[in-house]
Amino acid sequence: MKVVASLVLAASLSAVAFPAAAQFAKAEDAVKYRQSTMFVMSQHFGRLGAMANGRVAFDAKAAAENAAIVETLSKLPWAAFGPGTDMEGNTKALPAVWKDNAKFKEASEKMMGEIAKLNTAAKAGTLDALKAQFGNAGGTCKGCHDNFRAK
Amino acid sequence: MKVVASLVLAASLSAVAFPAAAQFAKAEDAVKYRQSTMFVMSQHFGRLGAMANGRVAFDAKAAAENAAIVETLSKLPWAAFGPGTDMEGNTKALPAVWKDNAKFKEASEKMMGEIAKLNTAAKAGTLDALKAQFGNAGGTCKGCHDNFRAK
Repeated sequence: MKVVASLVLAASLSAVAFPAAAQFAKAEDAVKYRQSTMFVMSQHFGRLGAMANGRVAFDAKAAAENAAIVETLSKLPWAAFGPGTDMEGNTKALPAVWKDNAKFKEASEKMMGEIAKLNTAAKAGTLDALKAQFGNAGGTCKGCHDNFRAK
Repeated sequence: MKVVASLVLAASLSAVAFPAAAQFAKAEDAVKYRQSTMFVMSQHFGRLGAMANGRVAFDAKAAAENAAIVETLSKLPWAAFGPGTDMEGNTKALPAVWKDNAKFKEASEKMMGEIAKLNTAAKAGTLDALKAQFGNAGGTCKGCHDNFRAK
């Protein structure tokens, strides 16, 4: 019972200290989570870019697989930018993420929308379709990084 | 043309230095990629565990969403354990991953199979179905970590 009581107490304390990101045990985990999801997404996005830009041969199956993974990952980072996760030194996220949160949210939604279109384009199975949407999707990455991420 | 020639040369050199994991620009990226996918997976798996173990209330929608993400991620790390990525100091992966690769591959396939079943179970929408499969899935994580990952 003592152990259970301690765990309940610990859970309550951590809920007080870190209220809005209860999905993560601690702020460091939220930072690591969003960095991890962004890194994995960038790897698969880069593989699409290599095809779109002609650095590697177009492969319809690989394009569809990578785009599906990118779309799944595009939805994940945002829940990890909760209050209390603006941890200087551990993150390149600028204070604007929290100070101008409505604009950040808008940018994230724009990105998810363009990535969803990229997934649809990749499923079409042609290099032209991929190329037609790749730049739009990449533009939303850059737009958000320019405004909300330290160089 | 000079730039193109340099890029082609750079691509050939990196292919020589790092042949079997051509999807990654360098071995460090492969290590970071597999650690990132494992970390993201562990966060979502942990949320299923919290429900299965009664630490948080069962939520059928959240369970289905988390299990789908876990299944997607369960397929990703393996391509990043290529030759030349056994980088001491950067990874907890034991030499057995490469020395006993057939067994490692078997363990990874067992894990993916049990995670797929977990996703099916989560979609059933009941706590009992989730609980019935959660332990089997977790057992395959542990089994592989015991044999192939430093403590």
